[in-house]
Amino acid sequence: MSNTSNTCPLCLDAGGLLVHQTQQWRLIRVIDDANFPAFYRLIWQAHVAEFSDLSLAERSTCMETVATVERVLLAQLRPAKVNLASLGNMVPHLHWHVIARFDWDSHFPNPVWGAAKREVDGGAAARLALPLETLDRLLVEALA
Amino acid sequence: MSNTSNTCPLCLDAGGLLVHQTQQWRLIRVIDDANFPAFYRLIWQAHVAEFSDLSLAERSTCMETVATVERVLLAQLRPAKVNLASLGNMVPHLHWHVIARFDWDSHFPNPVWGAAKREVDGGAAARLALPLETLDRLLVEALA
Repeated sequence: MSNTSNTCPLCLDAGGLLVHQTQQWRLIRVIDDANFPAFYRLIWQAHVAEFSDLSLAERSTCMETVATVERVLLAQLRPAKVNLASLGNMVPHLHWHVIARFDWDSHFPNPVWGAAKREVDGGAAARLALPLETLDRLLVEALA
Repeated sequence: MSNTSNTCPLCLDAGGLLVHQTQQWRLIRVIDDANFPAFYRLIWQAHVAEFSDLSLAERSTCMETVATVERVLLAQLRPAKVNLASLGNMVPHLHWHVIARFDWDSHFPNPVWGAAKREVDGGAAARLALPLETLDRLLVEALA
């Protein structure tokens, strides 16, 4: 299995706003979906498709990092729920979605990939307890 | 945090066809969605909402079990992708969806919660490489 792919978008580009990275993974914030501002992705740096392609130690690193991101979102934003997912049907390069969900958000309780339930007046980012740049900084502190 | 909830459907009921269980978790097969026959859920036995509510050791047990299920699905069914997700917006009791996805399935490459792309003639279960009961048995062997 090669470590990078010439055609994979997550090998060619950060895939979002880079928050923090190590040799093994990077955390990006998704910035193209105004409905879900507290939406992060943990992207494995090596080009592997499936979670079980990682070694035991790598899976532990991966999920402890996901849990750390989740903990920061829970503590800082008090969301109704955090959603975790590794799908990769479109881009089969291992990445974990970590999304803070609120009972007022556009799709709740549907998945973010499901049908919208409502419009959020004024935008979702404005309803968060703190600015996203502050949240990013707290994530870096927790992950460092 | 209590260990069970009187009102949680996953505390009151298996939540699907029980494939295997330990004191910490149970694996069920989802039997109410004909579009996705190879759809399993790892349900944590205790009533906790978030992945990060588990201890480090419990998270490792949880995700190594998820990885084992994924490996069996990959080896036996040769899917295009395995999808993993812990959402819980409707039922905030920790459970992991583990779903074998195929390029011919009703929603691919959309998430199973997204828009359907096609109808599958003859049903999806008939297109799997082996009967679901055999798959269940192979999962039990891998998990035991």
